[in-house]
Amino acid sequence: MIIEVINTGSELLLGSVINSHLAFLGDELFGLGLRIERQVCVPDGLAIRMALEEAFPRCQVLIVTGGLGPTSDDLTRDIAAELLRRDLQTDAGILDAIRQRFRRRGLDMPARVERQAQVPHGARVLPNLNGTAPGLYLPATPETPHLFLLPGPPRELRPMFRDSVLPILQKIRPADPGIVYRNYRVAGLGESQVEELIAADLETLPDLEIGYCARPGEVDVRLIGPQAPVTQGAQVLRARLGENIFAEGDAALESVVVQALVVRGTTLSVAESCTGGFLANRITNVPGASEVFVDGVVTYANAAKTRLLGVPPEMIETHGAVSRPVAAAMAEGARLRSQTGYALSTTGIAGPGGGTETKPVGTVFIGLASEGEQTVVEHRRYASDRETFKWLVTQTALDLLRRRLGTNRPGGT
Amino acid sequence: MIIEVINTGSELLLGSVINSHLAFLGDELFGLGLRIERQVCVPDGLAIRMALEEAFPRCQVLIVTGGLGPTSDDLTRDIAAELLRRDLQTDAGILDAIRQRFRRRGLDMPARVERQAQVPHGARVLPNLNGTAPGLYLPATPETPHLFLLPGPPRELRPMFRDSVLPILQKIRPADPGIVYRNYRVAGLGESQVEELIAADLETLPDLEIGYCARPGEVDVRLIGPQAPVTQGAQVLRARLGENIFAEGDAALESVVVQALVVRGTTLSVAESCTGGFLANRITNVPGASEVFVDGVVTYANAAKTRLLGVPPEMIETHGAVSRPVAAAMAEGARLRSQTGYALSTTGIAGPGGGTETKPVGTVFIGLASEGEQTVVEHRRYASDRETFKWLVTQTALDLLRRRLGTNRPGGT
Repeated sequence: MIIEVINTGSELLLGSVINSHLAFLGDELFGLGLRIERQVCVPDGLAIRMALEEAFPRCQVLIVTGGLGPTSDDLTRDIAAELLRRDLQTDAGILDAIRQRFRRRGLDMPARVERQAQVPHGARVLPNLNGTAPGLYLPATPETPHLFLLPGPPRELRPMFRDSVLPILQKIRPADPGIVYRNYRVAGLGESQVEELIAADLETLPDLEIGYCARPGEVDVRLIGPQAPVTQGAQVLRARLGENIFAEGDAALESVVVQALVVRGTTLSVAESCTGGFLANRITNVPGASEVFVDGVVTYANAAKTRLLGVPPEMIETHGAVSRPVAAAMAEGARLRSQTGYALSTTGIAGPGGGTETKPVGTVFIGLASEGEQTVVEHRRYASDRETFKWLVTQTALDLLRRRLGTNRPGGT
Repeated sequence: MIIEVINTGSELLLGSVINSHLAFLGDELFGLGLRIERQVCVPDGLAIRMALEEAFPRCQVLIVTGGLGPTSDDLTRDIAAELLRRDLQTDAGILDAIRQRFRRRGLDMPARVERQAQVPHGARVLPNLNGTAPGLYLPATPETPHLFLLPGPPRELRPMFRDSVLPILQKIRPADPGIVYRNYRVAGLGESQVEELIAADLETLPDLEIGYCARPGEVDVRLIGPQAPVTQGAQVLRARLGENIFAEGDAALESVVVQALVVRGTTLSVAESCTGGFLANRITNVPGASEVFVDGVVTYANAAKTRLLGVPPEMIETHGAVSRPVAAAMAEGARLRSQTGYALSTTGIAGPGGGTETKPVGTVFIGLASEGEQTVVEHRRYASDRETFKWLVTQTALDLLRRRLGTNRPGGT
């Protein structure tokens, strides 16, 4: 079943906003054993018509996002109705729901919002729990694919896709094609190191498609094919990559770490300088993190390192705030003051300013303190933009903790 | 000049990774007065050939990302050379640079990396400062557009685009078409409220294109057209939207806040519960934030609110941790202990668990304490996923501070 996606929205092409729809839709569809074959992004306006006309003969399912809003550049509904030669009619139920939505928030409904209640003849309405514009589903005809028109804002599209679109796709998709998919996530090795370790063995397996995806600080290895070679491929990965594999599937490193802390019944605190709260943020993005995450401090100023973590001012003066002893003292201070099983610390120079000859921009020390074990400090240099730097440092910190938790027996902290 | 973008990579279609290239490229090109007319994403492999063949007759500039890496699914270079009928030759200089790169990191160069040194006849090599695969530029021919082949990893693509691609585009772009672009960023109003305030006046201006882009907690209004109507449109926006406009251009709310703090010579600390470090993280993403940001605490556990901020345990017991008095006490505690001019606090229920009948998931209190002024606490409810919740809460917190800084005279804290 060939699936295509059209994302409409000038803002996506003008760079005002990142297109996160494709990743979401790709992930959800893969759960049904389906793949997106092609995605196109076009500006608001008449380009939508061309993109629809091109895609109609090429695919069986077409998902269009955006252009259902109240403003004058929202044309998807009108263009689709015109191409399919369907009349648009105002749906009294939708209009009423939109009106109530405004009333609940104590607002008047602007007149232009009314057009969101227009529905092409024969379309099924997909309710929008988080906004005013409903989605629309137009079943396939001999000339046109199954057509889904979905709202542009991710927080409206996502629940609508899960609640209303997936059940329809489950009915119209073909029987199981016998192809399976597995993804392995690797930290601590670069993309070419990973391939060097596994490629020769994987290439001997018939019908196995292998994909690599490198992101800062992690590499995904995907195996796609019939069950037998995928299972054999997975054995190769486990044998060759060992504990560098941090997840099978799509789990984020922070989820793996939180899960490991929960399993061991222990707790974590963090003391951040250069990562500025990003480490705590990643950990607290994991639902249920409050079970294991006690607290964190972001000690940007040196005085804060002393006040909140007990780092001796003389130590900062002698070694500098970006140093091995300070990273160790931050982690130990955090663990003792918060009375946690583990504590992570980061201190470094994110840049663009602040570098010196001996400590250039990108220099970072990452500390890990744990009960009854030696505090360790990793020294790295990540020369990159500020946000990538924060990502790489937190990745290394989380991986350091993951490996230590992995080698402990559960409960043995 | 019609510009198209092809992003290659099965991982983009399988949902393993978000495609951030389009936003980056769109933004950079707009700086030159250029727009992307269409973007296509196709899987690794032969689909790249189809996408190239389709785009060749349609555009004058074609930017292709991805598929230049060392692994077996990296085919962009080979397919482009074949379609343009150019021989591939190994470039000794590139090979040497790659070898040195591995040597500097103390690693052996895997043999498969060598193909990254292959260059189609007549191509210009675009150096890669952050990775092994160089980019390639093939000038236009009567049958084919200017073709840029760029690496997939954003931290390799971005500096290469700025250093090597932009200078070439500056030479080949047409003379100034007389079209200008302005973007205004608005907080505190929804998309339809914004349009209701400005649309009638803007519609009277000739040749003015208006675009809206709503994200959680902010709306962008774009004006595109000849100078005169854009200037008049900007006056309409300023008159109607007033202090709801937080930036002209693309500045993030956190940058505006940091800048305002710098101008006023004052300082900030934060005390976070439900936002888990994300508020500190957004602030410290701004280069130079260390001038004004002193420290932050992430007090997930109740005991941490008492220990790090001095919130009385009886107050938490009486009102609950998610309450107006606790938000106020957190902000005041942070400001006094860190001795800052301003302090922000957040306490709420991010979900999915933890809600009650009187305090459902999404309930949040946001506090702002400042020297010599009454502490204010905003009570909101943002029912959404965990990360959107954090975004909306930090957006409201930053906007609260921005408005207070805006109404103070500089230096008048």
